[in-house]
Amino acid sequence: MPEEERLHPLTALVKNESGVLSRLSGLFARRGFNIDSLAVGETNDPDYSRMSITVKGDRDILDQVVKQLNKQVDVISVKDLSETFHVERELSLIKVHAGTESRSEIIELADIFRAKVADVGKDFVIVEATGSADKVEALEDLLEEFGIEEIARTGRVVLERAAKKKTKKS
Amino acid sequence: MPEEERLHPLTALVKNESGVLSRLSGLFARRGFNIDSLAVGETNDPDYSRMSITVKGDRDILDQVVKQLNKQVDVISVKDLSETFHVERELSLIKVHAGTESRSEIIELADIFRAKVADVGKDFVIVEATGSADKVEALEDLLEEFGIEEIARTGRVVLERAAKKKTKKS
Repeated sequence: MPEEERLHPLTALVKNESGVLSRLSGLFARRGFNIDSLAVGETNDPDYSRMSITVKGDRDILDQVVKQLNKQVDVISVKDLSETFHVERELSLIKVHAGTESRSEIIELADIFRAKVADVGKDFVIVEATGSADKVEALEDLLEEFGIEEIARTGRVVLERAAKKKTKKS
Repeated sequence: MPEEERLHPLTALVKNESGVLSRLSGLFARRGFNIDSLAVGETNDPDYSRMSITVKGDRDILDQVVKQLNKQVDVISVKDLSETFHVERELSLIKVHAGTESRSEIIELADIFRAKVADVGKDFVIVEATGSADKVEALEDLLEEFGIEEIARTGRVVLERAAKKKTKKS
């Protein structure tokens, strides 16, 4: 994989204030980084939010961006988790077209992927899938044949397993 | 609930380009809206991303922001789903301190909430919970007594069930 195509999962603890998101995403944009996925959610302290950001790009430039982010007053800490052991999850709500015949087939597929049925309507089923990006995408691909009406995916959230570093892959 | 405290789930289909997030979050910040939760993820078309945004604030001002967002070239569509039937989900990775005695108790609690165990370490368990914000928070509260080390929550993702409007609650 070329260096620019590599995905980097970042995790940042930031102040829960108006304007923080705009300032931080501006920093990435000015360096030409496209944010691949982003999740901003609450933490156990209402004063802080945790951002999980996945960006694609060159490692050296990213290191500079992380350094700049760490200098911001709104930012408590930023870490690049690419080289650490981590757990990565995302959630996808997939609204699939479903007639009376295809409905049970869709639910069966969802079961295999340990996905849940979030809602059923006259002509649709909303499937709630969680897992790694690969797993979620595999299910989306399989459901494609029934006709996907809409997808809403959270960005990836990432938690470090331990502070131990992975041995660097070449 | 006072009007300024009401949560509005918005869904936006935007171009998957560098800088879009910064421009859109800037629009909210200039109006003093704090983004409560945000999820940006891929859609079935790689050229577009879907943002699920939850903001707190005055309805009339929000209507103006939605109008402004709809005028942006990067924005395909924005909808305020407060008055429609919708499915709302989020995912939380919760790293809980766990000794040998408390581990089984934590796993039992996770089971009751239909949450999964994403990872187990020597002195921690990572629980993966999904559901409405209320459900996720209820589990977080229960796990608090064991000692929460870290939480990473995706923002809420929202999908409209049908185009039908809810009858307005007073």
